[in-house]
Amino acid sequence: MDDPFPYRHLLAIEGMKPWEIGFLLDEAAQWVDVGRRARKHDDRLAGLTQINAFFENSTRTLLSFEIAGKRLGADVVNLSAGASSLKKGETLLDTALTLNAMRPDVIVIRHEASGAVGLIAEKVDCPVLNAGDGRHEHPTQALLDALTIRRRKGRLEGLVVAICGDILHSRVARSNFHLLAAMGAEVRAVAPPTLMPAGVAALGAVPFTDMEAGIAGADVVMMLRLQLERMDGAYVPSTREYFRTFGLTVERLRAAKPDCLVMHPGPMNRGVEIDSAVADDIQRSAISEQVEMGVAVRMACLDVLTRGRREEGR
Amino acid sequence: MDDPFPYRHLLAIEGMKPWEIGFLLDEAAQWVDVGRRARKHDDRLAGLTQINAFFENSTRTLLSFEIAGKRLGADVVNLSAGASSLKKGETLLDTALTLNAMRPDVIVIRHEASGAVGLIAEKVDCPVLNAGDGRHEHPTQALLDALTIRRRKGRLEGLVVAICGDILHSRVARSNFHLLAAMGAEVRAVAPPTLMPAGVAALGAVPFTDMEAGIAGADVVMMLRLQLERMDGAYVPSTREYFRTFGLTVERLRAAKPDCLVMHPGPMNRGVEIDSAVADDIQRSAISEQVEMGVAVRMACLDVLTRGRREEGR
Amino acid sequence: MDDPFPYRHLLAIEGMKPWEIGFLLDEAAQWVDVGRRARKHDDRLAGLTQINAFFENSTRTLLSFEIAGKRLGADVVNLSAGASSLKKGETLLDTALTLNAMRPDVIVIRHEASGAVGLIAEKVDCPVLNAGDGRHEHPTQALLDALTIRRRKGRLEGLVVAICGDILHSRVARSNFHLLAAMGAEVRAVAPPTLMPAGVAALGAVPFTDMEAGIAGADVVMMLRLQLERMDGAYVPSTREYFRTFGLTVERLRAAKPDCLVMHPGPMNRGVEIDSAVADDIQRSAISEQVEMGVAVRMACLDVLTRGRREEGR
Repeated sequence: MDDPFPYRHLLAIEGMKPWEIGFLLDEAAQWVDVGRRARKHDDRLAGLTQINAFFENSTRTLLSFEIAGKRLGADVVNLSAGASSLKKGETLLDTALTLNAMRPDVIVIRHEASGAVGLIAEKVDCPVLNAGDGRHEHPTQALLDALTIRRRKGRLEGLVVAICGDILHSRVARSNFHLLAAMGAEVRAVAPPTLMPAGVAALGAVPFTDMEAGIAGADVVMMLRLQLERMDGAYVPSTREYFRTFGLTVERLRAAKPDCLVMHPGPMNRGVEIDSAVADDIQRSAISEQVEMGVAVRMACLDVLTRGRREEGR
Repeated sequence: MDDPFPYRHLLAIEGMKPWEIGFLLDEAAQWVDVGRRARKHDDRLAGLTQINAFFENSTRTLLSFEIAGKRLGADVVNLSAGASSLKKGETLLDTALTLNAMRPDVIVIRHEASGAVGLIAEKVDCPVLNAGDGRHEHPTQALLDALTIRRRKGRLEGLVVAICGDILHSRVARSNFHLLAAMGAEVRAVAPPTLMPAGVAALGAVPFTDMEAGIAGADVVMMLRLQLERMDGAYVPSTREYFRTFGLTVERLRAAKPDCLVMHPGPMNRGVEIDSAVADDIQRSAISEQVEMGVAVRMACLDVLTRGRREEGR
Repeated sequence: MDDPFPYRHLLAIEGMKPWEIGFLLDEAAQWVDVGRRARKHDDRLAGLTQINAFFENSTRTLLSFEIAGKRLGADVVNLSAGASSLKKGETLLDTALTLNAMRPDVIVIRHEASGAVGLIAEKVDCPVLNAGDGRHEHPTQALLDALTIRRRKGRLEGLVVAICGDILHSRVARSNFHLLAAMGAEVRAVAPPTLMPAGVAALGAVPFTDMEAGIAGADVVMMLRLQLERMDGAYVPSTREYFRTFGLTVERLRAAKPDCLVMHPGPMNRGVEIDSAVADDIQRSAISEQVEMGVAVRMACLDVLTRGRREEGR
């Protein structure tokens, strides 16, 4: 039988085959129930060392990976940007080689520079999991989004998914474009012209600069966080103006299908890209479920990536 | 038999019945010896996830809860203020819902706003333990103080306990007023007029603005930390002036009973609210013992609050 | 039989006997293979509490101790400077007594003041491990350096070891002088006059202010980090000037033995004290191996220091 996941690292969704994505989603689906038990442990990673090296601040993603690793029994240690040796002038690769020399069994990395995680992966002896690198990719976010959609809608193929907002600065959007296109969804990129990157069509998405048109008939509306902190030099819309033209309100959502799923990778700017009435809509909002699926997806990725090492170790 | 602790959360001492407080103290007492062994583990929380969400900086309390959870075998993860999503504009409740979606089995929360912990508790699916919220309450501190007194004095009922200093800014004092009144101690609030909140009498305490009078005949003198960092706008005494009038010295302590117990929740300002000769008095000072009892009390609270979930899980 | 390690704490290499150092190196050597397995656990510290109290920022050393403790099954908790109560005016000894009252089984301490770790060790009930104190000592670094040399060269005795660079600010150098002298190596201190402390001869090292002369015929060249951040008031060489006169280049290294080992405690300033061509020389550079040996040495020290407690506990 072919290896269902023939990669050493998980760096990007781009280039993954539909059956490989489906395999990871199936693996993740098994962990959802485990997370709902009181005793959540499965010790298949017992004795393994997981380093979470977050060179860019993050709360939810770091916590999600930490909880995922601990539930699998791994020894989890965190390295966060503030404390990093980088401040003492060490290069990123030297930091990576130092981590590698401590013989971890998996390294989870977040970095503000696109491609940095891939560079590190080439230099270390263990699997590397990309937890977000610059504007490049955030593969576990796309996987958890897909798992959420699949559980709610029963499938990904043929669905109309509108990804809306600050696409320019969003690695979440990029990973989702790749994943949804691979799985046969109809993907739309909905953004004001200043926040629409060139070449979304090449990523398999149809661009829309009008919000109503972009979400018309959509099965899923995925809002993105307006990343004001990354807009160096660019024209920055006022948040009020942005909400008026691209904020997701109950009224605007009427253009989508009545049972449309509303998603957001968090953290939300309420009243900027999304109205509270939509965010808190119990029927349509899947925002909390996304977070829960995040832990399941990360457990699956940690498990799958370390499977080979564990078998060798027997 | 009635449930000895019929609460889902531990948010406040206010409203707790004497037998409920006694029950928690009895439970905590069992953990003291475990902490003195070399092997300190009891794995009754194995497989459970404990999130310590500290939105206000703390060293000793966070460490105490972390050690307590780990000794019980829980998977403990910390979220500290600096790294929090709050900085990215997320609301407190959204942060709480995010934590909740990761399916923790207990959340320990410290927050600078009074009532914030209670608000979160209403929104999440698991027990919440208040590790201090604004000027409201710090229930595990009152419990550890009570356990310390009970071990040293054999009882709480009938003891004269003087709580001295910056009562205005102190959630420790508030929780202690409630607990000691419920357990039948005679409680005194000793503070300069500017640091005495209105309505201490309603909390069951007799107010004193003279230090000597306040500690006269006391069985226990509990000093509070002068919280200079919280005195925005208020009249701030010089620390030298404060020490002269309200600092606890060996001389001043002669007004109390000869076997009087001296306590302090820490961190101490030596030479401000307490003199080193008193703090280091091996006979009378119970300050280190308080810290030790803190771990035992937190183990008990974590155990009691998660008991229901663990039984369901079987 | 005599106790092979008759100390309660590990505070310094100074004063240790050659057979005691050899015993720790032998113990550490056993852990190297464990770290190379997929399953790295040995649970001999299960149920014990290890506090890493780092009052000075550090990434690699903290991570190394954390991984070492977790691989031994200890409950490891970290206290880092930023979050410390010291900011609230608490004295160092009060912080230490607070940690002690939580009944840890071992405390690992890093502090910016020379001697601070020894002061704490006198006040607490458990073994203390010095992870670097000011300009005093960093004993586990010297041990990991020695283990690295011994594995590569088969011995320490009789080797010519040149320690080069910013010796003035280096506790790493001091610990190495003591260790290498005790083990019978021929030690050289190679530094510009402004970075050469008085009295290196008394530490058993021969001083050289010329780099070429200092490394001539050396078996080991150990470069030190130029600690620009510690040079308050002193004459600071430009990094370019420093590299020209004291940087380790391929050319300069020709003065040493052909199979000379190149070491660096990290983090490296490439192009300042060491050229990339030397740092990345697979044959001669042992820099990554040092990091790996660090985990093994710390496992050994944690194990040896807690042996007595664990035996009592049975």
